[in-house]
Amino acid sequence: MTENTYPYKILYDFALTVFKKIGCKDEEARLATDVLLSADLRGIDSHGLARLSGYIRLWEANRINAKPNIKIIHESPSTAVVDGDGGLGLVVAPKAMEIAIAKAKQCGTGWVSVQHSNHFGIAGYHAMMALEHDMIGIAMTNASPLVAPTYSVERLLGTNPIAVAIPADKQPPFVADMATTTAANGKLEILQRKNKAAPLGWIQDKEGKPSANPHELKDGGALVPLGSDFEHGSHKGYGLGSIVDIFSAVLSGANYGPWVPPFVSFLTPPADPVGKGIGHFFGAMRIDAFRPAEEFKAHMDNWVTRFRSAKTIEGQSRVLIPGDPEREISEIRIKEGIPLNPKVVEDLKELAKKFELEF
Amino acid sequence: MTENTYPYKILYDFALTVFKKIGCKDEEARLATDVLLSADLRGIDSHGLARLSGYIRLWEANRINAKPNIKIIHESPSTAVVDGDGGLGLVVAPKAMEIAIAKAKQCGTGWVSVQHSNHFGIAGYHAMMALEHDMIGIAMTNASPLVAPTYSVERLLGTNPIAVAIPADKQPPFVADMATTTAANGKLEILQRKNKAAPLGWIQDKEGKPSANPHELKDGGALVPLGSDFEHGSHKGYGLGSIVDIFSAVLSGANYGPWVPPFVSFLTPPADPVGKGIGHFFGAMRIDAFRPAEEFKAHMDNWVTRFRSAKTIEGQSRVLIPGDPEREISEIRIKEGIPLNPKVVEDLKELAKKFELEF
Repeated sequence: MTENTYPYKILYDFALTVFKKIGCKDEEARLATDVLLSADLRGIDSHGLARLSGYIRLWEANRINAKPNIKIIHESPSTAVVDGDGGLGLVVAPKAMEIAIAKAKQCGTGWVSVQHSNHFGIAGYHAMMALEHDMIGIAMTNASPLVAPTYSVERLLGTNPIAVAIPADKQPPFVADMATTTAANGKLEILQRKNKAAPLGWIQDKEGKPSANPHELKDGGALVPLGSDFEHGSHKGYGLGSIVDIFSAVLSGANYGPWVPPFVSFLTPPADPVGKGIGHFFGAMRIDAFRPAEEFKAHMDNWVTRFRSAKTIEGQSRVLIPGDPEREISEIRIKEGIPLNPKVVEDLKELAKKFELEF
Repeated sequence: MTENTYPYKILYDFALTVFKKIGCKDEEARLATDVLLSADLRGIDSHGLARLSGYIRLWEANRINAKPNIKIIHESPSTAVVDGDGGLGLVVAPKAMEIAIAKAKQCGTGWVSVQHSNHFGIAGYHAMMALEHDMIGIAMTNASPLVAPTYSVERLLGTNPIAVAIPADKQPPFVADMATTTAANGKLEILQRKNKAAPLGWIQDKEGKPSANPHELKDGGALVPLGSDFEHGSHKGYGLGSIVDIFSAVLSGANYGPWVPPFVSFLTPPADPVGKGIGHFFGAMRIDAFRPAEEFKAHMDNWVTRFRSAKTIEGQSRVLIPGDPEREISEIRIKEGIPLNPKVVEDLKELAKKFELEF
């Protein structure tokens, strides 16, 4: 199955129209499309158009509100809790990040915990919103439980990503965007499609033994936290995933741990919720609340340059800076178009039919 | 070589006297001793009395100022940069954390980046200071370069720990305190003393190849970031260690990356510093800046209880909550005393002689 490549503009307009068709306001449809397509541009194919039909199915199941009343329900000078009113995470998240940025303008930093939201696309998008304001941006979210803590056979955490974006001057920004598991679920999905074995240390079977079977999660298996096993620090990945869960959901009043509702519409959310929807957490720190931004950014240039020029192990041409691979893919795809997996194309054609559109 | 056990009080008084002997003010000597001994109590033996003679040698080399003028050099309502004036990190860090807590009282959260400091003991101590105020505490620090980024043979980062402490109600607090490497340097030191092989995935040799030799760092080798290798996510550990470095040092004006001065007095700091001393970063978030503290803590109890009761893999009796092992060791050691490695006892006897004390 070969992948066809589509111009960015065509895909953008298609997603935009779909979001409008389900009733999103123009501005919010545009926001959702920006966030969704940023994943395809940056090469995180699992979080882009591949998920569009999933969002729509959740909307059909009345689990996504296309016209949310997103509001602050609690605040202090540097913090807020936002109620996403069941809206698309793709809309709720950037709006919550805007609040964090506004708070940071006022008092140096801003921190926003969000309840009653849904899957928010790639964490990196939201963190990067801070960059143009000369701020450091932070974004995290909890997610459907697919991950077993160290020593557990039960799945209690999501892949709970953390993104941190830090501005530089002449150098590109530092953008780390990582699941707190050894491998993101998207990487596993690629192996599932190709029916290829996973490296040991990514997955455990239903008894907690290491497994190479990419379909193991369907049989009670789990993804494992960053570190793979206790001897290699999986308790640290478990700790990080837990921190994301608590900041995103226990602080905001969303569902946490095994109570997080599943992304897929064919699985019903737990009958005994401990909060509302899923949770996110955002932070913005104004650089000049610490030191003059120009000074900081000049040192970041020095930092980036020094790390990038480090002597490498044999067979590797360079040491990467977090954000390098995604930026480079993005530069290519904006010019040459976005390759889509045939199954995703199939999916989008179905959507086109549903909404009487062309694709 | 058997380990003798010493009562906490005896060890505490000894360290306190030593800090006073080098000229620390009473209150600061007490603070330094509290922080240092908290490591021995919590079972993090590498960061407690085992390091006392190291701090003293740095003071003898004029690299630690026993009478620092610790001050805020830049601030906003929710942030500050603190100049540690070359003081003991054991003193500078808790004072900076106090500033973060005071800022949080005023505007919901407080964030303090510190320059011109030294090794600050265990990160967990400082993060835990927030707990009694019903706040979440965060502490991190950069450190001497012992870690090679993914694909690098050069050591550019320290083991750069992150600690996060979160209060619960009837359950003990959640306290994660982790190096951003697969294994902390302290764990390696234990293997070095016993001359035992390290698990593959902890260390690389001078060419970047996996090594089991615990003495590899003396021959140009390096510790590796959490994740062990690229396939298992070491770029994530590298990203986390980098974030700690940047928050601690690029934000504050301390030395970062390979410019961080070494902890040991027999190695001289780089001749071309990019900042002052080493850097730390602290955060405090008031729970009730997000939701009522009682509500949050009741949900934390639920979180902790649910995770602790998870079904385990065969051979393991329970799933641990971050902070469980350290708290349990602490409860034993406060009653039964602290076991000291004979080499550490030797070290303390030397110190006793130097300052005309008994040990």
